[in-house]
Amino acid sequence: MEGMTAGQYELVYNAFSFGIATFAAATLFFWFGRSQVNKHYKTALTVTGLVTFIAFYHYVRIFESWDAAYDIVDGVVVATGTSFNVAYRYVDWLLTVPLLLIELILVMRLTQSETVSKSLTLGGAAALMILLGYPGEVSGGIDSTRLIWGALSMIPFLYIVYTLYVGLGEAINRQPESARGLVRLARNVTVLSWFFYPVVYFAPFVLPLSGGMSTTVIEVGYTVADITAKALFGVLIYLIAVRKSEAEDGHS
Amino acid sequence: MEGMTAGQYELVYNAFSFGIATFAAATLFFWFGRSQVNKHYKTALTVTGLVTFIAFYHYVRIFESWDAAYDIVDGVVVATGTSFNVAYRYVDWLLTVPLLLIELILVMRLTQSETVSKSLTLGGAAALMILLGYPGEVSGGIDSTRLIWGALSMIPFLYIVYTLYVGLGEAINRQPESARGLVRLARNVTVLSWFFYPVVYFAPFVLPLSGGMSTTVIEVGYTVADITAKALFGVLIYLIAVRKSEAEDGHS
Repeated sequence: MEGMTAGQYELVYNAFSFGIATFAAATLFFWFGRSQVNKHYKTALTVTGLVTFIAFYHYVRIFESWDAAYDIVDGVVVATGTSFNVAYRYVDWLLTVPLLLIELILVMRLTQSETVSKSLTLGGAAALMILLGYPGEVSGGIDSTRLIWGALSMIPFLYIVYTLYVGLGEAINRQPESARGLVRLARNVTVLSWFFYPVVYFAPFVLPLSGGMSTTVIEVGYTVADITAKALFGVLIYLIAVRKSEAEDGHS
Repeated sequence: MEGMTAGQYELVYNAFSFGIATFAAATLFFWFGRSQVNKHYKTALTVTGLVTFIAFYHYVRIFESWDAAYDIVDGVVVATGTSFNVAYRYVDWLLTVPLLLIELILVMRLTQSETVSKSLTLGGAAALMILLGYPGEVSGGIDSTRLIWGALSMIPFLYIVYTLYVGLGEAINRQPESARGLVRLARNVTVLSWFFYPVVYFAPFVLPLSGGMSTTVIEVGYTVADITAKALFGVLIYLIAVRKSEAEDGHS
């Protein structure tokens, strides 16, 4: 990697290892939590754990790809000739991003038909968003290809944000009082953490970062965003499920 | 490693393997224990097991990194060229240290709002403490960089000690009698075992140890401190959860 220091290489390396440990631990936490909530919320926690489990798998792959792509020789980072696979993130997101929205819908406990229709429209929009971003990312250049696919990907993104605020706003007001603030927080964490991804995607067009610094910012940044959007968001889903179970059992 | 004997290398090697076995066993013990306590304490034991699970993962990584970094040729320790990754400990602590404080808060069973606010302030202070120590450790030198970051890291450390004694002191007095002594002991074990870390961090400034002896003391010392702060502390959390469950069920 041109201009990457050993310190930058190791920071990314450690960030990926941190991701592996966090997602493995989060997965177990959510699945253990299934026994502590009412049966209406068990699926939400199953899915929450699936998201972090899928992320755990991809962070193992990303870590190994990073490890194989570079060596440190006499304190200098040298490419081994094996390329670092940037596509693992897209494969991960294609699975996890629709599931993240489904988690939120499941824990809100809407009517059966609303649950199915919102899961299909929001989940479908999320999958479309990732698919449209992919050709721009793998093209590798900072050019019109990246710009056009990125712009197309923003259409389903904005549709999701709109639906979360307008379409689900009324359903959030119907949540039991003890959980309403948390559901609103979970919705806001989703939107705020997701905004980080287009910022990173379009950053090369406006920021003069180059080589090592750019890679470090992107990889550590995506890792922090993934942990926020999947593990921390999952903790909120868990807390909502616990609070709503308690409210339904009649003790707060 | 300059001046490290084969005996020292092997002692560290065996200490890491001891850590792997201890943390794996402790994790299973805490998770089996979940079925023996009231539901209010299940989350505390889930988290206790997560801490040792995360430590288990990192000790496997640390062990492999140590194994890859040195060879013994004709009874002499020689570096292979792959560097030993000192950062794994920081990655581990960044996750486990906030969780350790959350374990203690969960088993005390405070009110819902106290649990959330104490978890956020103490957990946040713990994460900040680790993040501030990292730049000093990876800089590698025994100089003002290590000293300044270490000193900054002590600010959240002292805040945590203060909160554990003053902020939680009153809550400890409210614990049921059969568990009060154990909760106090768990608090004291936390503070005492944690004091070992700044001692090791600042030791190079005052002790004339060099090369192999210094590395051996640091690595074996951190391992003993980790086992005390995570596995032995976890056994106390388990005992508190069992005693409090018994007290609540009306037989002591």
